[in-house]
Amino acid sequence: MNYDQKALELHEKFQWKIETKLKTGINSQEDLSTVYSPWVAAPCLAIAKNTSQVKKYTLAGNTVAVISDGSAVLGLWNIGPEASLPVMEGKCALFKQFAWVNAFPIVLNTQDTEEIISTIKNIAPGLWWINLEDISAPRCFEIENRLKAELDIPVFHDDQHGTAIVCLAGLINALKIVNKQKEDVKVVVNWVGAAGVAITNLLLKYWVKNIVVVDSAGAIYKWRERLNPEKELLSNTTNTACILDPESSECVRWWLIQAVSWADVFLWVSAPWVLTKNMVKSMNKDAIIFAMANPTPEIMPELAYEAGAKIVATGRSDYPNQINNVLVFPWIFKWALESWVNAISDDMKISAAEALASYVKDPTANNIIPGPFENWIAELIAQSIK
Amino acid sequence: MNYDQKALELHEKFQWKIETKLKTGINSQEDLSTVYSPWVAAPCLAIAKNTSQVKKYTLAGNTVAVISDGSAVLGLWNIGPEASLPVMEGKCALFKQFAWVNAFPIVLNTQDTEEIISTIKNIAPGLWWINLEDISAPRCFEIENRLKAELDIPVFHDDQHGTAIVCLAGLINALKIVNKQKEDVKVVVNWVGAAGVAITNLLLKYWVKNIVVVDSAGAIYKWRERLNPEKELLSNTTNTACILDPESSECVRWWLIQAVSWADVFLWVSAPWVLTKNMVKSMNKDAIIFAMANPTPEIMPELAYEAGAKIVATGRSDYPNQINNVLVFPWIFKWALESWVNAISDDMKISAAEALASYVKDPTANNIIPGPFENWIAELIAQSIK
Repeated sequence: MNYDQKALELHEKFQWKIETKLKTGINSQEDLSTVYSPWVAAPCLAIAKNTSQVKKYTLAGNTVAVISDGSAVLGLWNIGPEASLPVMEGKCALFKQFAWVNAFPIVLNTQDTEEIISTIKNIAPGLWWINLEDISAPRCFEIENRLKAELDIPVFHDDQHGTAIVCLAGLINALKIVNKQKEDVKVVVNWVGAAGVAITNLLLKYWVKNIVVVDSAGAIYKWRERLNPEKELLSNTTNTACILDPESSECVRWWLIQAVSWADVFLWVSAPWVLTKNMVKSMNKDAIIFAMANPTPEIMPELAYEAGAKIVATGRSDYPNQINNVLVFPWIFKWALESWVNAISDDMKISAAEALASYVKDPTANNIIPGPFENWIAELIAQSIK
Repeated sequence: MNYDQKALELHEKFQWKIETKLKTGINSQEDLSTVYSPWVAAPCLAIAKNTSQVKKYTLAGNTVAVISDGSAVLGLWNIGPEASLPVMEGKCALFKQFAWVNAFPIVLNTQDTEEIISTIKNIAPGLWWINLEDISAPRCFEIENRLKAELDIPVFHDDQHGTAIVCLAGLINALKIVNKQKEDVKVVVNWVGAAGVAITNLLLKYWVKNIVVVDSAGAIYKWRERLNPEKELLSNTTNTACILDPESSECVRWWLIQAVSWADVFLWVSAPWVLTKNMVKSMNKDAIIFAMANPTPEIMPELAYEAGAKIVATGRSDYPNQINNVLVFPWIFKWALESWVNAISDDMKISAAEALASYVKDPTANNIIPGPFENWIAELIAQSIK
């Protein structure tokens, strides 16, 4: 039986991966009267007097909604809300398994930015935290920023920030192995999706200075026209020297293939199979490749190694070096819950990445990042970002 | 310790009454790969091919959302979304306890009809059923009707239909005790909220012919002006003879006090304390009073009995004859889930009411309706409405 069949059978057998569970029994008239009418009126009235008490008396004190419009699901892209639900429900299961946080999935029947924002604002009063998931760029940036500004509960787009933290953690250890410095190393990020933008911004904060970001029209550079707001920002912070074209020595547009031949590190958060063996061969010595498209990476690790790569990481659990958000998001949420923190700053993200990297005592090419079942990652991350 | 304090302490102790629970363990890389990336792609793709498969592979096959805008909560009225959450979460707990159906609460930060409709439509793809709760009339009627028309999943406003079914069940047994016939009995319904309208309509279907519905401007009758759509409908189906004013013998407006003195049965779904002992005294012999405002009824049972009432029912669990939706809604949902039924017809509602009434073998004034912990109500209702 192959894994697709196995996954289908498991999903059908359980029909759902999570369910609800009572925290208190309802076995008598008195229980019923306390949990429901008439005495439930007491917490209702307490909250009516002071809205913030909703966190004290209800599941709004511990419940994350995992929300998606199904527009950028794994590497499957725009498969719509219903088809995205197994992923969102899986994410909710991971929240519970790894951080004992309650989460339920909400998939949206709209991909319109304004409608998504107003819908999420409308369902926010009963939630503790909103985890945005698998919403395509560039809408995800406006949606997250607007919700952060307009809601008084935390909003976190895990595809951006969770991915960026784990990616940085892996890179910290990879650079140790090849003995390159963050200030010198040449990084290409492909492409300008949710993760690509967040990774680039976090690397810049971490003082990685030489980054070229590539989209379908080639490298982003300062004088490129018709850039959307996120790319406009990146055009000012990356590729700042406007890297010269090797042939004309002028500041011209690089295509991916040229950027590749300049780079020490490639961070790929794009689509399956876009990286060829020849492209890997053209990279600098001791090339580091993070091929993070899910479920099929941009190049399979065995091909990348054949072409001379030194370190290869993917999003897959069936290869070494899995760059997996589950290493971070449950702990970030759990810690934020316990600390009543309402937003995750860039400094917290870098601290979390450094803590995660430090978990691996002696990094090797096949061991740059811990696995998800290491029990004390939680404590390590929590202590690092306090 | 009084019950308010006890309810507050319980709600604070558990912080939330329900939580999420995993249905399958995640204890290995293989588990993680199956529940989440990469193999979760298999059910995603199966659903992308055929959207209806979402019920087969995800919690959308068994999950109810209990949705409120907090505008008509118990007898506390418009206390807003946060303050309504203990009730909604309690309802979700009842779903799980009594019918093993998963439910989670969503409280809305808007009381605008169009916004509520669009928000609920937007979050519908991951739900099996929508249970509307504690939304004030007349908005609740349009919201329910529009959602039923515009969504392909079931929508049920329990304040209307659950209440109507339990109320009819109680009335069936009460009429047996006083030996009055449904065709002759004179019923006053006060007032035209969600429950009042639904009860009236279900009684009419059940062939109770003499009903007068009263709102704050007196009885509804055919030529009354400026009626909203629901009252306009009721003006054609109730009070059809335009009951004469006792003094002028003309068709004039009755106030509540006049309607009361005409009636055998009063069904009150309004506000605390609106019924006086003198009003009860003016009623016909063997008066039946359902004083269903929650948590404080329109008249306390002891006062009604002192004034000569024969049978008194309330919404409270601390008096006999509790007219409580929990007797019906979990079973209706469970049955609909198992039968893949997408709507509950009036015939089904009447069958459910008759089944519920038949559960009480020898009805007495203090025993017209079963309690919520009777184990085989489920089976009885399921068999009756098949």
